[in-house]
Amino acid sequence: MIIEHNTMPVVIADDYKCIEQKNTIFIRGLWDPEIIPIMRKIEEAHYNLKLPKGTSGYTTLDAALKAAAWSICMQCTPKNEYGCANKGFYDWDGKKGLKKETFADKSEASLIIKNAAKFLGANLVGIAEYDSRWIYSSWYDFEKGQSVPAKFPFKIESVIVVAIEMDQDACFSSPSLISSAASGLAYSQMAETGKKIATFIRMLGYNAIPCGNDTALSIPLAVQAGLGEVGRNGMLITPQYGPRVRLLKIFTDLPLQADKPITFGVNKFCMKCRKCAQTCPAEAIPFDLKPTMEGTSLSNCSGILKWYTNPEKCIRFWAQNGGDCSNCIACCPYNKWSSWHHNLVEKVTESIGGDILRK
Amino acid sequence: MIIEHNTMPVVIADDYKCIEQKNTIFIRGLWDPEIIPIMRKIEEAHYNLKLPKGTSGYTTLDAALKAAAWSICMQCTPKNEYGCANKGFYDWDGKKGLKKETFADKSEASLIIKNAAKFLGANLVGIAEYDSRWIYSSWYDFEKGQSVPAKFPFKIESVIVVAIEMDQDACFSSPSLISSAASGLAYSQMAETGKKIATFIRMLGYNAIPCGNDTALSIPLAVQAGLGEVGRNGMLITPQYGPRVRLLKIFTDLPLQADKPITFGVNKFCMKCRKCAQTCPAEAIPFDLKPTMEGTSLSNCSGILKWYTNPEKCIRFWAQNGGDCSNCIACCPYNKWSSWHHNLVEKVTESIGGDILRK
Repeated sequence: MIIEHNTMPVVIADDYKCIEQKNTIFIRGLWDPEIIPIMRKIEEAHYNLKLPKGTSGYTTLDAALKAAAWSICMQCTPKNEYGCANKGFYDWDGKKGLKKETFADKSEASLIIKNAAKFLGANLVGIAEYDSRWIYSSWYDFEKGQSVPAKFPFKIESVIVVAIEMDQDACFSSPSLISSAASGLAYSQMAETGKKIATFIRMLGYNAIPCGNDTALSIPLAVQAGLGEVGRNGMLITPQYGPRVRLLKIFTDLPLQADKPITFGVNKFCMKCRKCAQTCPAEAIPFDLKPTMEGTSLSNCSGILKWYTNPEKCIRFWAQNGGDCSNCIACCPYNKWSSWHHNLVEKVTESIGGDILRK
Repeated sequence: MIIEHNTMPVVIADDYKCIEQKNTIFIRGLWDPEIIPIMRKIEEAHYNLKLPKGTSGYTTLDAALKAAAWSICMQCTPKNEYGCANKGFYDWDGKKGLKKETFADKSEASLIIKNAAKFLGANLVGIAEYDSRWIYSSWYDFEKGQSVPAKFPFKIESVIVVAIEMDQDACFSSPSLISSAASGLAYSQMAETGKKIATFIRMLGYNAIPCGNDTALSIPLAVQAGLGEVGRNGMLITPQYGPRVRLLKIFTDLPLQADKPITFGVNKFCMKCRKCAQTCPAEAIPFDLKPTMEGTSLSNCSGILKWYTNPEKCIRFWAQNGGDCSNCIACCPYNKWSSWHHNLVEKVTESIGGDILRK
């Protein structure tokens, strides 16, 4: 059952502060001696032509499919997978309409934006009010190679959060270059859809900043926009696709009616399930019954009650794998909400007294 | 019922010759005094910011949706909608794999290419053997502003023909800026998918030339590739979507198993139906019972037994409309093959003795 909430259904510490972008795991690949060699190995597989292992899931055909799926992302949103903002399809600027379109009210504006976003390629769309807590406390300038103040060029009124579904069959082959192709296809579609939605908003006379992996934390924004809950695997779990989505967000000065955050039992379910923790080849997902307020990695954003995954372990496996891994997405019972595994765990969790949110 | 054929199920004159690209209606907009002002008006609506009419289907919202849907095509395949080849996503060149992938046989190669193409965004895929009859007898160089010899940089073995579905609801609003958004979205998807498929082929060590509206006639290639038949409206009619598709083709030196052309009663059906001719606001589609061997316009490619539409009348309406028109797509009963209208006409055409192909 899906329950709507008036406030973020997440426990947040009073002294919570968003991490600096430079501390995200990918950008650490540019300056942190521990991460640089790992990231170089991932990049090599990502950008260069190297004959793949040749075993099932790692053949030349699989590598070609991966390269093809990622091709638009690679060419049109340079380094965005590492967090580089304001480039290519994710440009913060673009030709604008002659005058600002007016709407009856925020609800009408939201309805129009959502319909347009779906037409233009979004699988799910939600609206969040602007909340500076989810913006990196400083941004990383890829050209300067240093942190810069996080400051938008205009006053943000609303954030449109879009989920792009990953191909199920390809994703379920994780870890393999085929599941990396599913990620890549979704990344390319994020870029394509982001550019289209930004163009739509600009033609209505407003500003739009489409973002992939840059600028702000996507998952809390998606939770705030009512798209789902956070799971043990640290990912957004949606009622429609489970964690099998990639997230795109568009910051705009167009005032929109925000959606309400939802819960549908994910938190309780994840306490017992642990399938992602068992399936993670990097042992990067905790087995603890309950979520905590503190991460253990520089790249964790502490101060939120959740399960903290270990990004260093995660990407170390990517480097070894020759491509990103989607095990924690593929194995999640929320991919198919009515599977035997899901039903069983839901039965079991009924016995856990009290929702974690009301502890 | 779908019937497969060993040869092109189309009557072609002995002296048939493909038209020169410069005579296609869009390129005539660059040199033909009759077409220049019409094309300029279309371009103005397409590229510039001009307040739209404001009536239903022509509001600022509709214009914004159109601009958004076309945005990737406009930015990443410059002037391809007019026929400009070898630019942006339709580049003829790209990073290639280190060695040529080998396949058990042509059938295996075809199966792999088709599966990859569908994964990467194709709604329908067919393979045609290379047939020089469908290549423009000369190409048009947009930079030089003149015809150049039609000569591929490598020996073409196969042509992959891809159909991209147009959004049905948006298309059915034709003529409007919303139906133009459906065209634009499909054009953008053609470009995105073309680049991805070309990348896949190149990573397997082969050459790939992805083409939208350039280089060759898309419709006969699609017929040859078994994707459908030609209708009275001059468009490809597919069993799956009727004429509601846009076509992309990829020329390659990878040897592939060709598909067989199909017929499924379109020719006979179109003789009686005439719905597109009645619905065309430009009166550009003939009402004649039977198809002919000769077009009446410089932009028709004569020598093929079919109904010849009038491209001058067609685009004159586009200029007046402020965007392309899809009436002849939207009204076609093959959009929904089991509609009452379709069944009725099929009943009526049963009385017409002899298939037109066996005349």
